Amino acid sequence: MDVINLSAKFARFDKLWSPKVIAALNGQLVKVAKLKGGFIWHRHEQQDELFLVVRGRLRIDLRDRVLELGEGDLAVIPAGVEHRPVAAEETWVVLLEPADTLNTGDVRDEHTLDQLEWI
Amino acid sequence: MDVINLSAKFARFDKLWSPKVIAALNGQLVKVAKLKGGFIWHRHEQQDELFLVVRGRLRIDLRDRVLELGEGDLAVIPAGVEHRPVAAEETWVVLLEPADTLNTGDVRDEHTLDQLEWI
Repeated sequence: MDVINLSAKFARFDKLWSPKVIAALNGQLVKVAKLKGGFIWHRHEQQDELFLVVRGRLRIDLRDRVLELGEGDLAVIPAGVEHRPVAAEETWVVLLEPADTLNTGDVRDEHTLDQLEWI
Repeated sequence: MDVINLSAKFARFDKLWSPKVIAALNGQLVKVAKLKGGFIWHRHEQQDELFLVVRGRLRIDLRDRVLELGEGDLAVIPAGVEHRPVAAEETWVVLLEPADTLNTGDVRDEHTLDQLEWI
C-alpha cells in the first residue's frame, strides 16, 4: 500500500503503445501509457475501458463518431464497441480496465502485448 | 459515451464529503469528491478503494501508518483495511470503487450517504 505518483511512473518508460501497470483493485488494473500516432481498430468483448488524458490530446475514433479528449478529460469505451485511439502529438493517458484485458482486444497482431509489465 | 471533463464536474458541486458519480465501468464507479477536515475511521469489507488527488493534499490515516498524497498521487486502500481520510485544506479527489461501496464502509452515522448522485 504505497503512494503512487503519476509523473514518476510516466518518467520510467518511453516506449509508445506499451501500457504499464501501476496499481490493481477489484480485479481491475490501472495502467499508464504514452501514445503517438494511430493504433489499430479493435474491441474488447467483455471489458469496459477507461481513458483519462493527463498530457496531450487523444482522439478516439468510433465507427459512428469521434471523441476528442484533452487534458483532464476521460471517456469510457463500453465492452463490444470498436474503437481506434489516435494521438497527433505524444499523449499520456491513464487506463483502467479488467485484469484480463488484451491491449488489442479481438485482434492479434504485432501490436499485441501478452505480458503485462508493472512499474 | 461522452467525454467527461474533470474540472467541469468539480465545478458542479461544493458540498464536502459528498462523492458524486461521473462514470461507471465493469461494476465500478468513478466518483469525484471535495474533502476538507477529517472523516471517520471506517473500512470497506469487500471493496478496494482508489484515491487520486487532483487538487490539494490528502492524508490517509491507517492504523499503523500514514499516507500523504499530493496532486497527481494515488493510493489503493485494500478491502478490510481501516482508514481515515484527512484534508487540511480543501482537496479534490477522484475515487474508484465498486458500485456497492458505502462511503462510510462498516460504519453508519450522519456521514453515511445511501443515495448516490450522478453529475
